[in-house]
Amino acid sequence: MQPLYQEGSSPSEPEWFARLDEVVKYLASSRPTAVNLFWALDRMQRLANTLRGARTPEQMYQEMLAEAKLIHEEDRRQCRDIGRYGAELLQSGQGVLTHCNAGGLATADYGTALAVFFAASEAGKEIHVFADETRPLLQGARLTAWELNQRSIPVTLICDSMAPLVMRQGKVQAVVVGADRIAANGDTANKIGTYGVALAARSHGIPFYVAAPSSTFDLTLDSGDRIPIEERDPREITHGFGTQTGPEGIDVYNPAFDVTPAEMIEAFITEKGILRPVDRETIARHLEAKTSIG
Amino acid sequence: MQPLYQEGSSPSEPEWFARLDEVVKYLASSRPTAVNLFWALDRMQRLANTLRGARTPEQMYQEMLAEAKLIHEEDRRQCRDIGRYGAELLQSGQGVLTHCNAGGLATADYGTALAVFFAASEAGKEIHVFADETRPLLQGARLTAWELNQRSIPVTLICDSMAPLVMRQGKVQAVVVGADRIAANGDTANKIGTYGVALAARSHGIPFYVAAPSSTFDLTLDSGDRIPIEERDPREITHGFGTQTGPEGIDVYNPAFDVTPAEMIEAFITEKGILRPVDRETIARHLEAKTSIG
Repeated sequence: MQPLYQEGSSPSEPEWFARLDEVVKYLASSRPTAVNLFWALDRMQRLANTLRGARTPEQMYQEMLAEAKLIHEEDRRQCRDIGRYGAELLQSGQGVLTHCNAGGLATADYGTALAVFFAASEAGKEIHVFADETRPLLQGARLTAWELNQRSIPVTLICDSMAPLVMRQGKVQAVVVGADRIAANGDTANKIGTYGVALAARSHGIPFYVAAPSSTFDLTLDSGDRIPIEERDPREITHGFGTQTGPEGIDVYNPAFDVTPAEMIEAFITEKGILRPVDRETIARHLEAKTSIG
Repeated sequence: MQPLYQEGSSPSEPEWFARLDEVVKYLASSRPTAVNLFWALDRMQRLANTLRGARTPEQMYQEMLAEAKLIHEEDRRQCRDIGRYGAELLQSGQGVLTHCNAGGLATADYGTALAVFFAASEAGKEIHVFADETRPLLQGARLTAWELNQRSIPVTLICDSMAPLVMRQGKVQAVVVGADRIAANGDTANKIGTYGVALAARSHGIPFYVAAPSSTFDLTLDSGDRIPIEERDPREITHGFGTQTGPEGIDVYNPAFDVTPAEMIEAFITEKGILRPVDRETIARHLEAKTSIG
């Protein structure tokens, strides 16, 4: 795929908008479940439309580049704010568990779930993180464990199936995960396996927190039933990482996400503050608010 | 390790018993959690002791070989009986889920949990099995999915973290797993991840069955807290199947088993029949019984 704009080229306005449309469609096709991507693409396209007729394509490109950098900077600040609010929920000496990767490699700067751990650590709280490896693509092993290790936060890598056991052993006092899309009622889509972690947390009386910026909420969806769930290549499960580990031609189900029902979530940690109780009204009010609500 | 007895050798009785002791200790060191192994080793050693002084070492060897073949034959018959009793618990059209491998590659002939599926299928019941891949060693992907496929039983391979989702989707009406050791109160040690499957099953109102022969019950242990849990090499998680998938030197916790509390188990499926309710008294009575109790 070519970039949106080539330095020195002079497209006509119709050519420019046709190209913009093409690029937006291409990026939108990469992941159906996460909503922040659509939010950002929409923001960029709306900007272009407000400039239509008043700027040359090159000027539009420059203003859109500035807008993209602004989104990046906003994301950095939001991640820091999420971290700061979330850190207040943790106490020194606690074990915390996370699933998949919601750190600096998935967002700008600090991440969402991992921002909470980074901020807690910076505030002098001693926490120990259990990182689920997160099959099939092992983002927990390859990214989360690495990021925490880099910042010298104690981390223990486990298989996804071990999370219920470490909870039962009393090693975990809180769960913090990220989110790909949150419906108006609080139902939350996140990486496959998150729902099982939430079930286990509830069974052990462990609070389950979701850390995500406001742009992850999709108020156009009444509940999680309407969040599209991406299914991926069976070979991610049968041929992961260089070796065939399943019989030839075996039937495989490989959903990349699941939905955790709102009632299993203790609170959302957003850049505007902690959102609880998790219900439709609180979410609606929170998304309008300029400052923290509790 | 050399075999117990070399054809044509003539060990003295003290040499023979020293060698037997050595072999038993070696085999016992292979797995601390499963109890059937100790049961079988104990049975063989007791036979040798009853023959002490009355047979030459070569004669003892021949009688022990016959005893081993008898155990094998008993195991075959027990697996068939487990299958027959368990199949009565399933109905045509149901989805069933299993974790790890409790089939013909792990036992004699038919297996325990898989025996239930084989027998149901032979009885004309159409079932669809969901096989958890079972990290870190993927026995579900490599063995269970293969065995079911070989016998033309419809099977879908999933990652462990997907089991709660397929339950929520209504695709699973029963869970059947094997066991490595069952305490006097019914607490059951089985492959890591079984406990999480049981939690998810309970949350969705799905009956959770454990299929195992009587020799898996260890009445010397009051509860599951006293079952030793084997911890294994961290590299099973960070270097699985040819590729490094975790950061160098990362801390890893790799328990090979977990314990599912008795109250989460709907029934035990044994060669003597279905055992329920799952409690201390029923287990004690059941293990003395010669025939099926319900």
